[in-house]
Amino acid sequence: MNKPLVGIIGGEGRMGVWFKNLLEGKGLTVHISDVGTPLTARDIAEKCQVVIISVPIAKTEEIISETGPYMRPDGLLMDLTSVKTMPLRAMLEHSQCEVVGAHPLFGPNETSIKGLGMALCPGRGKKWLAWIKELLENMGARVLITSPEYHDRVMATVQGLTHSSILALAMAINETGHDQHELDTFTTTSFSYLRTQIARTLGQNADLIGQILTLNTDILKTVSILEAQVKVLKEIIERGDYEECSDLIRRTQAGLGMGTDDGE
Amino acid sequence: MNKPLVGIIGGEGRMGVWFKNLLEGKGLTVHISDVGTPLTARDIAEKCQVVIISVPIAKTEEIISETGPYMRPDGLLMDLTSVKTMPLRAMLEHSQCEVVGAHPLFGPNETSIKGLGMALCPGRGKKWLAWIKELLENMGARVLITSPEYHDRVMATVQGLTHSSILALAMAINETGHDQHELDTFTTTSFSYLRTQIARTLGQNADLIGQILTLNTDILKTVSILEAQVKVLKEIIERGDYEECSDLIRRTQAGLGMGTDDGE
Repeated sequence: MNKPLVGIIGGEGRMGVWFKNLLEGKGLTVHISDVGTPLTARDIAEKCQVVIISVPIAKTEEIISETGPYMRPDGLLMDLTSVKTMPLRAMLEHSQCEVVGAHPLFGPNETSIKGLGMALCPGRGKKWLAWIKELLENMGARVLITSPEYHDRVMATVQGLTHSSILALAMAINETGHDQHELDTFTTTSFSYLRTQIARTLGQNADLIGQILTLNTDILKTVSILEAQVKVLKEIIERGDYEECSDLIRRTQAGLGMGTDDGE
Repeated sequence: MNKPLVGIIGGEGRMGVWFKNLLEGKGLTVHISDVGTPLTARDIAEKCQVVIISVPIAKTEEIISETGPYMRPDGLLMDLTSVKTMPLRAMLEHSQCEVVGAHPLFGPNETSIKGLGMALCPGRGKKWLAWIKELLENMGARVLITSPEYHDRVMATVQGLTHSSILALAMAINETGHDQHELDTFTTTSFSYLRTQIARTLGQNADLIGQILTLNTDILKTVSILEAQVKVLKEIIERGDYEECSDLIRRTQAGLGMGTDDGE
């Protein structure tokens, strides 16, 4: 099992290509299927010992149900989806083989996996879990073994608040009606950095972000928290009470364990 | 008037020190007053041709009213406040000399003024306005001549949305109850960048941020826009409609003139 035959379903997507290159770099043979490839998803399931599902979140359950039943009992079925509860449940339901849910905590622009986080959720069996963990750790990845429920809850903060706050900010900037040239002209140092952050976060595929936000059901809670906090802040601004506002900022800084400085 | 005597009221604050160093570097003599200095604000007004007020926003009007009447009629009264309508009105009301409102669009951690934005709002007179503009441009600053009303309206987006969105996000992260260690462990690349942005924006003095948010009265409008956009997004997430969410993201990307990529 040191050199299993690997198959990637969705192997022409950017993350699929990224993992194909990663695994081929370790001397593994990787077959792929995608829309219009000679091999189908079912072919991959029947042919390969390790099958990695790298398709849009909204397609994941359907692809699992179509391929899981054809997996070899001694194989590994693993997905790379940004949510973990749904794919784990589906993989366990539709297969008899070993199951691991994985979530790379990075995007396909990275040039090396060294130092990057990779969440693994054990589903069924220990043999392949140990194999994939060792393989990733040998390449320098930071492997995090976790439950799918805990993963989705933490990601509702880590990904959910990142995407929702930056998206809402970008929507608000557009709504103010200031054009890009005006904003470029009057930008502060902080606002420049923030626009770089907007470009980075919203520079990703819109379908991916939309599916992360709507298909991790824990995100409704964190976005509701964000909405409530914006309302708290707006009401303080409405009262024009700068001491109350500064106290709120000091409490927030303390909650983040931050030291402070002076500024613009 | 090439080498006027300059006085900075609030000359021991970080921005005051920064401008003292900047102007002394150009061969000017700079006197300062601050809490507990031998020279008072009134001494500075009586003694110096160019008087720069660099005090907290909430103190600006009071300091202007105490010093403006003692200014030499041939002098320049200038402030460095992050809002401009209020100080301009106060400086015109309480003095007879030339008046310019200034807003450095950067913080006191910068090591050079080269390439940095400096908004100037003409108040009264042209002689000193030309002098300060030339001085700043000779040092490489990007000088923007604007009206105080326009300045405050653009800053309600540039500074108001930066500070309010990052503050509300930080408040929301604290409210989720995840500790810093959990967030460090499960961070994505995007979330890491965003936390650096939070540290940068909220690393500033809490009184300064609180006063910017509450004393630029145009910010209530932009924060209300932000609140409305978070609500729009939350309702889409509540419906779980990923196509609607992705369409919203595509419209937002288009509004920002952005190309897109794939991602985590």
